[in-house]
Amino acid sequence: MKSLKIPEATVVRLSVYSRYLDQVDKRGLTTISSGEIAKGVGVSAAQVRKDLAYFGEFGTRGVGYNVKELHGHIMKILGLTATWPVVIVGAGNLGTALSMYGGFRERGFHIRAIFDNDPAKIGYRLDGIEIYHINRLPEIVKATRATIGIICVPADQAQEVANALVEAGIRGILNFAPRLVLVPEHVELRNVDLSVNLEVLSFNLALRRSSNRLAGSVF
Amino acid sequence: MKSLKIPEATVVRLSVYSRYLDQVDKRGLTTISSGEIAKGVGVSAAQVRKDLAYFGEFGTRGVGYNVKELHGHIMKILGLTATWPVVIVGAGNLGTALSMYGGFRERGFHIRAIFDNDPAKIGYRLDGIEIYHINRLPEIVKATRATIGIICVPADQAQEVANALVEAGIRGILNFAPRLVLVPEHVELRNVDLSVNLEVLSFNLALRRSSNRLAGSVF
Repeated sequence: MKSLKIPEATVVRLSVYSRYLDQVDKRGLTTISSGEIAKGVGVSAAQVRKDLAYFGEFGTRGVGYNVKELHGHIMKILGLTATWPVVIVGAGNLGTALSMYGGFRERGFHIRAIFDNDPAKIGYRLDGIEIYHINRLPEIVKATRATIGIICVPADQAQEVANALVEAGIRGILNFAPRLVLVPEHVELRNVDLSVNLEVLSFNLALRRSSNRLAGSVF
Repeated sequence: MKSLKIPEATVVRLSVYSRYLDQVDKRGLTTISSGEIAKGVGVSAAQVRKDLAYFGEFGTRGVGYNVKELHGHIMKILGLTATWPVVIVGAGNLGTALSMYGGFRERGFHIRAIFDNDPAKIGYRLDGIEIYHINRLPEIVKATRATIGIICVPADQAQEVANALVEAGIRGILNFAPRLVLVPEHVELRNVDLSVNLEVLSFNLALRRSSNRLAGSVF
């Protein structure tokens, strides 16, 4: 078997391409070139071709890609032709926002349950999804066949929650707590720190400021 | 002047390194090797050295890096030695969650105002931050000297809000709406789609499933 070692940046771009192809498809276009995809999402055409080449030969030289076909291929590559049952731990602001985030359901991620340790929240529903006590995690993960868990608890509880999710049989964890967590090899983990996005902005803004300063100086 | 072309992935890792160095510093360590940083954050030591090399020579061969010094350097590179005034547009669940997200303030991003078009929300405060009508965006951006704007509105309003932010003089935009927006060259833009994070997980989970299937088959 050919060994696959796909850069994460490629996977992220595939996700972006798939959204763009979906838009284009809805506008009625049937074929598209790598250059058009590139322009639509803001990367180079060579990058588009390189990203797709990891997964075989799509499209026809000089004609381009069949929009529907390429969209279907990418959705399959991303594991999005199936639906993924998901649980959220933490019914605070972020957990609440994520439980109602339309983008998840659209892409096949179905939130099945939310967990919290605050007795005042247990039994309530967010957008139809019940809030359970964290003690019931193993039972509900089993019942809902959830494979993915999202951590939305304060930093100092993140590792404990990660351990509980792994114990309950969760295979993939998305961690929004601003603390790195560790999981065993057999579990996929993605730490999301929302500040990082702002820091990429501030890095670029700081870089522009210093270039402007240099450009405006006499040296 | 040496032209800087820093991969975004490097900037994201610098952000991760800086957090780790801060933790290590608080534990009282004074020097650290690239290997130790690498182990702490889950990348290779070569990657750490390569990322840092973009910005000059840090550390001493055979001794390692001075923790405080390296942390300070990285914070400066990321533009985090200053504070950044930020405004949020959209006081829904996500906007509310972000306005209270402790990780922002910790890193120097100060939310100065939130905007919405729902009259029922205007004048309320979220964690001390006032909600203003979107009409007052130009005035408040000027008064707060905000440089960064965060978009937390539904997809179909995202471009309109981006235009308003640019018009108001915002220099960097973080877009959480599940729709790509376009901005002029002089504005820094980062589109954040929260589903992408789940899709990187589902990609990896789907990949594992198919490898397991192949490994378990007789072919």
